[in-house]
This record gives sequence, structure tokens and C-alpha cells, in this order.
Amino acid sequence: MKAEIITIGTEILLGQTVDTNSAWLGKALSEVGVEVQRVISISDNSDAIIKTLDEILSDTNWVIITGGLGPTKDDITKKVLAKYFNDELVYRPEIFEHIKDLFSRMGRVPNSLNKEQAYFPKKANILNNTRGTAQCMLWEHNEVKYISLPGVPYEMKGIVEDHILPKMVEQQDYFIENRYFLVQGIPESDLALRLTNWEGSLTESLSLAYLPSPGLVKLRLTCRGGIENSDRLLKELDSQSIQIREILGKDIFTESLRGIEYIISELFKKSGQTLATAESFTGGNIAAKITSVPGSSEFFKGSVVAYSNEIKILELGVNDNEINLNGPVSETVALQMANGIKSKYQVDWSIATTGYAGPIGGQGEAAGTVWLAILGPQVSWVKKFSMGINRERTISKSCLVILNELRLLMDK
Amino acid sequence: MKAEIITIGTEILLGQTVDTNSAWLGKALSEVGVEVQRVISISDNSDAIIKTLDEILSDTNWVIITGGLGPTKDDITKKVLAKYFNDELVYRPEIFEHIKDLFSRMGRVPNSLNKEQAYFPKKANILNNTRGTAQCMLWEHNEVKYISLPGVPYEMKGIVEDHILPKMVEQQDYFIENRYFLVQGIPESDLALRLTNWEGSLTESLSLAYLPSPGLVKLRLTCRGGIENSDRLLKELDSQSIQIREILGKDIFTESLRGIEYIISELFKKSGQTLATAESFTGGNIAAKITSVPGSSEFFKGSVVAYSNEIKILELGVNDNEINLNGPVSETVALQMANGIKSKYQVDWSIATTGYAGPIGGQGEAAGTVWLAILGPQVSWVKKFSMGINRERTISKSCLVILNELRLLMDK
Repeated sequence: MKAEIITIGTEILLGQTVDTNSAWLGKALSEVGVEVQRVISISDNSDAIIKTLDEILSDTNWVIITGGLGPTKDDITKKVLAKYFNDELVYRPEIFEHIKDLFSRMGRVPNSLNKEQAYFPKKANILNNTRGTAQCMLWEHNEVKYISLPGVPYEMKGIVEDHILPKMVEQQDYFIENRYFLVQGIPESDLALRLTNWEGSLTESLSLAYLPSPGLVKLRLTCRGGIENSDRLLKELDSQSIQIREILGKDIFTESLRGIEYIISELFKKSGQTLATAESFTGGNIAAKITSVPGSSEFFKGSVVAYSNEIKILELGVNDNEINLNGPVSETVALQMANGIKSKYQVDWSIATTGYAGPIGGQGEAAGTVWLAILGPQVSWVKKFSMGINRERTISKSCLVILNELRLLMDK
Repeated sequence: MKAEIITIGTEILLGQTVDTNSAWLGKALSEVGVEVQRVISISDNSDAIIKTLDEILSDTNWVIITGGLGPTKDDITKKVLAKYFNDELVYRPEIFEHIKDLFSRMGRVPNSLNKEQAYFPKKANILNNTRGTAQCMLWEHNEVKYISLPGVPYEMKGIVEDHILPKMVEQQDYFIENRYFLVQGIPESDLALRLTNWEGSLTESLSLAYLPSPGLVKLRLTCRGGIENSDRLLKELDSQSIQIREILGKDIFTESLRGIEYIISELFKKSGQTLATAESFTGGNIAAKITSVPGSSEFFKGSVVAYSNEIKILELGVNDNEINLNGPVSETVALQMANGIKSKYQVDWSIATTGYAGPIGGQGEAAGTVWLAILGPQVSWVKKFSMGINRERTISKSCLVILNELRLLMDK
């Protein structure tokens, strides 16, 4: 089965909102064997919506439309779709009851604009939205299902999980499965050379894709074919996955799509050890990444974000002469910070970062010059990196690099 | 002038990569008066690319294509486009020199895959990519400009800024300008009711859009028309902006698209005061947000991420009886944390957070129960919130809420 996604919202075309909905939908649909052929983003404009619906690809089975269902004037999707399907809006008291109920839980009462959301197209099926006021619509037309969802990600996801994915699973006719191999610290083209012979030996059912992002390459091995061959296809995918593991070994840090913070979390839970961080230029980003994983309180005690030199000296015991002489970005300061937090928070492992995130450097060093340090049981690691002048990239790459290094050191 | 964006990459349709490029492009293009009509995402598939090029809208002047220019096998954009425009690839030694030069700066040497990137279509104009190995192509065909850019955001942005925006500015024929008004803590429909009369009085040239995200509504007032009327249009936009400011007053926290952390940063730089945070469930996210702003070291001293109770007691002076009796999520603990960090880091203002981020709660409290506190000169503020069961939302909403509260308290 094949799908197209249409995201409606002028804010997307103007770049004020990043369309994360279609990424989430793409992932959810491909997991149930539905291939997303195309994503089209258009503005809240009646002509654009109608033209896009008119040009749906001939082999599309599902059209998933998001956005434009809010209570305000710029939200026109419901009206335009109703017209397109020769339908009319009628007041549905049970929808207004649902809206009143939702509002009362937040201690509020609906206003006249919210009441308008209780008008619903007569011929459409209702897909109940328990998380918000905009109810969702499903029309069937020439054997294609058209579904209109709200643009609010939290609401959209709930409806897809409750109503749409189960329907898709029932009708699955196509086998598609992906395996992921995530690698850090190796450039894409080096990785490609290491895999080139193996890649050349793959059959038509399998394909490999390289998805690079700063400091990270995701490898995706995709297997696709008719659902009647699923057993054979799955076997082929398994045996080629063994091959890729043999070639890349420990350079693969995970085969899930979860970030390195999840891998770290598992390693700590297994070892029963504890962790703390002392962060300067990363400003709490490492702690934030680690604590984004539920249950991280089992091993993560906390962090000192020592943004000023004063805090580095007073709270982490960094030598003030050292800072006065050579500035806060050096091997010594990184190690002293790691040492300081390790003994203060009494943890098994500590991480420390100090550097010039940019856009400007200091003490004769360019922006992007950073020192990263890790201390652990019988482990001391410290290294200098040049991350480039982009502040955001320097911070995010440093977080990845140090967490990957921690993984390798813990895994020894 | 009108544009369409085509993003090529199976990873986008599978949802492994969020397409942030088109958002960035949408913003950049609209700022120079180019209207993005449509964004289409398709897979790395020759037929899909050709079909999409065949169906470009009749009034499109610029087609911006991103993705599929990497050195690996799954990258086919260059070959497909060359064929589409009846062009052929020829080896360009100067491109290989550029690749060698880029590699040597990273202490590496190009391999055979990188050498293939030096083949370039004969009839295309070259747009120099100083940030990466893939050179960019520009074809003109039936008065439409087709530009192929790499998918790596950092490289793509450089080329657009260096080569494409200047060309667009030269040819500007359409006036479009947006004003933004960002509001926190007021539901979209309440906001809409307050603005309904004023919105009804707007002329055809002006339109208002509501862009809600958790805890935040962006209002966008757009003015558009022929470039020959730009003076009149700009005046109209200015006078309506005054109106919206009068209606919403201090509920508008900024008129830029920058986050609240930039507003906080400006307030602190103006006041010469200092700030520190003590974070439990927000895990360093507030510190990370604040330090994402260049120059934040002028006022931000640092943070204690007190993830464990032990650190709350030892490092922030929270009363251990209090925690043993009532748990770590209470008004008292939030205030003691704020007090602890304020005196320890000797700052004028302090922020503290403690709560159950979810997915589970504790001590009879539901997930999403949080206490937020702010202390400042003659200021003490503490409040309980119920943020819902979603961990990520609870953390991000709490960061926004407390920074907005800090803004209001500092601005009194």
C-alpha cells in the first residue's frame, strides 16, 4: 500500500514551523508496510489544496492531510475538504460535549470559536481526537482513503496510533523492513569504501542508504518485496545484517534509532555505576541529553554547569593560577573539572567540557577549540578537538563525541 | 517571484531525517520577496525526480532542489538531472583540487568515491560550495532556474547565502513582509477572541495567522502586494502593528522570531545583573537554552543540575527531613533550591525546578506535577503546574514558562 502526505500551513512554507509531522508519519507508516511516496506542503489556500488533491498519484491508497483544523480564521481545511467531497457541515452536539469536557479538565470554558469546531461534515467518518478539540475526518472516494488530521503533533500522533495504524495493519500487502546501524566519528566516504564490496554483492531486494549528520552516520539497510516472500526476505536481511556487523564491529554504537544517550543509559544500568558532568561551553546540554531518558535518575547524580571561571574555581576546584595564566580552555582545566565533579558528587564516572563554542575564540585559540575529558575507574581520557566556527554545531557535536567516547571506555 | 522546493531523500519519507532545509529555505526566500508555493519531498528515485520536475507549477520561477549529491551509491540526483537537461558529466580538475584542499584542512586525503564528485554537467553553471565536496548546479530552462544543492544543511545554507539570495534580491518584483508577535501562556482561542474585531477590520493586503506550539502562540501579520505599492503597504503594516501592540500589551514577549532566551539575555545585559539555575527534572535544559545565546557568559554564572536528592541536600542545602517527609517535589524544596543556588553562586536572580517529568509520578502526585521558583532582588515567586504525562513536553513547556515569568518579574 502507498500513501501521500499533504501538510497544510502557510507557516511551513514561510519556514516558521519545521514540519516534524511528516517525518513522524513517514516512520509510523513505513513500520506497518505502507510506503510514503511523496510529502507535499502547501499554504492555507483553497486553490492549492484542491489542486493538490486533484493530482494525487494514481497508485496512492491513503492520503493523509495534516493542519488547518484550528479554531481561528486562517484554518480553512475543513471547509475546503467538505466542498471538495460535496459534503456539508452540520452541528454535532456530542462533539461540543467533548470540547466542553476537555476545557473543564483545564479549568476553562469554551468560547464561541471553539463551538464552531463542533460542526462536522455529514458524509465523513469521525475519528475521535481525545487530546484536542478538532475532530478528524475520513472520506473514502474512488477506493482512496482521505484523512484530515490536526497539525498539533501531540494530537495528530494520538489519532494515528488509535485509529489509522490499526486499519493499515489489517490491509498490509507489501513487505518493507529497515535495519539501522549507527556509526560515530567515521566520515561517510571512508565508511562507503569499507562497505563497497559487500554493497556490490547485495541482491535487488536490498538497498543501503547513508544518512550523515554532524558527527554521525546512520546506515539504513532496507529490504522490500511482495508480502508473500516475507519469510525469504527477512532471512536475507538477517544474513546481510550479520555481514555488516562483521565489517564494522564496534564502530556501530547502536542498531536502534535511539540516540547515544539511550545506549549510555543501558550501560550504566547494567554496571550499577554512577555519572556526573561538569560542563562549561556545553552549558548543560550533556546533562539535558542524559536526563531526557526516562529512569536516568538511577545513575545520573547531576551536573555543575560552570559557565564562569569563578564557578570553575570555587565549585570544581580548578586552579586559579592555571586559569589566569592559560585561560579556561586547556587540558589541565578539563581534567581538573572532571576531577572536581567526580570527587564532589562521589560518582564512578565523570565528564568535563571546556572550550570556545563560538562565534569567537579566546587566548589565541580559534572558535570551536574544545577540550573534552572523561574520568572513570582506572580510566583517564582527555582530548582536544577543532569543531569549527558554528556555535550550535560545536555544542551538539561535542555532546555526541564525548558520549560515544564514554561508551567505548565503558565497554572495554 | 515564486519558487518551489524539492527535497530528495528516501530518509525524509521514511521519517529518519526531519526536513529542516525547506523551513530554512522558506524563511530565507520569503525575506527577499520570493514566495514558496510548494515543498515536495520525494525519494532517491529517478522516476519520482523526473515526474516532479515535469509537474512544476506554470508560474514558478525558481526550482530549488536539495539532497542526493553525496559520494555514495544512493545519491543519484546529479546523474538524473544531467539526463533530464540533456547534459553530460565531464571531469573538472579544479573541482578535484577544491576537494583535495578541503580534505587536507581536516588532515585527510580524498578516496576514489570523492574523486567522482569532480564530474560536473557540461551545460550547468557551477555554484561554488566552499563548505563541502559536492559542487552545486544551476540550469536555466524555459525561463525557469533549476538549482541543485546538497542536503547537508550547513553546506546548503552557505551556497544559498553566497549565490542564490543575491540573485533573487536583484530580481525582486513582489512585496511581502511579515511581522511577528510572540505570546506565552494564553490559549489560541482566547487570543483569537481578543483580536477578532481588529482582525475583521484588516484590508485584503493584510492577513493574520496563529501558529501555536506548546505554551506559545506566534502571531504572524503578513502584508503582500505589488512591489510598486511597497510604501503604502509598509505604512499599513506599521499602523496595524501599533494596533495589535495596544490590544495585547505586555502579553507580547517579543516581536522577533528568536526564543525567549534572547529576550532574557538582553534584559540581563541591560540590568548588569547575574543569573544561576538549580535544575532537577529540567536536567540542564534551562542552562542549555540560556547558554545557546552567544555572550551569555556576561550574566550567566552557571547551574547545579541536582538530579538526585543527595545533591539537592549536599549542594543546594535542601532540608533532608523535608525530602524524607514530603519527597523532592514541593513548594519548600523548590524555594530551598532557588535559595541554595542564589547564595552559593552569589547571583542576583535564581531559578529552580523540581517535578515529576514523567512518564510516572511519585508521592501521590501525577506525572507532570512540577514546582517552579524564581528569586530575585525583593522578588520571590513559586508556583505549581500540571504539565501532563508527556516527558518531553513537560520539560520544554516548563523551560518556557519559567523564562517568561522571569521576563515579567525583571520587567516590572
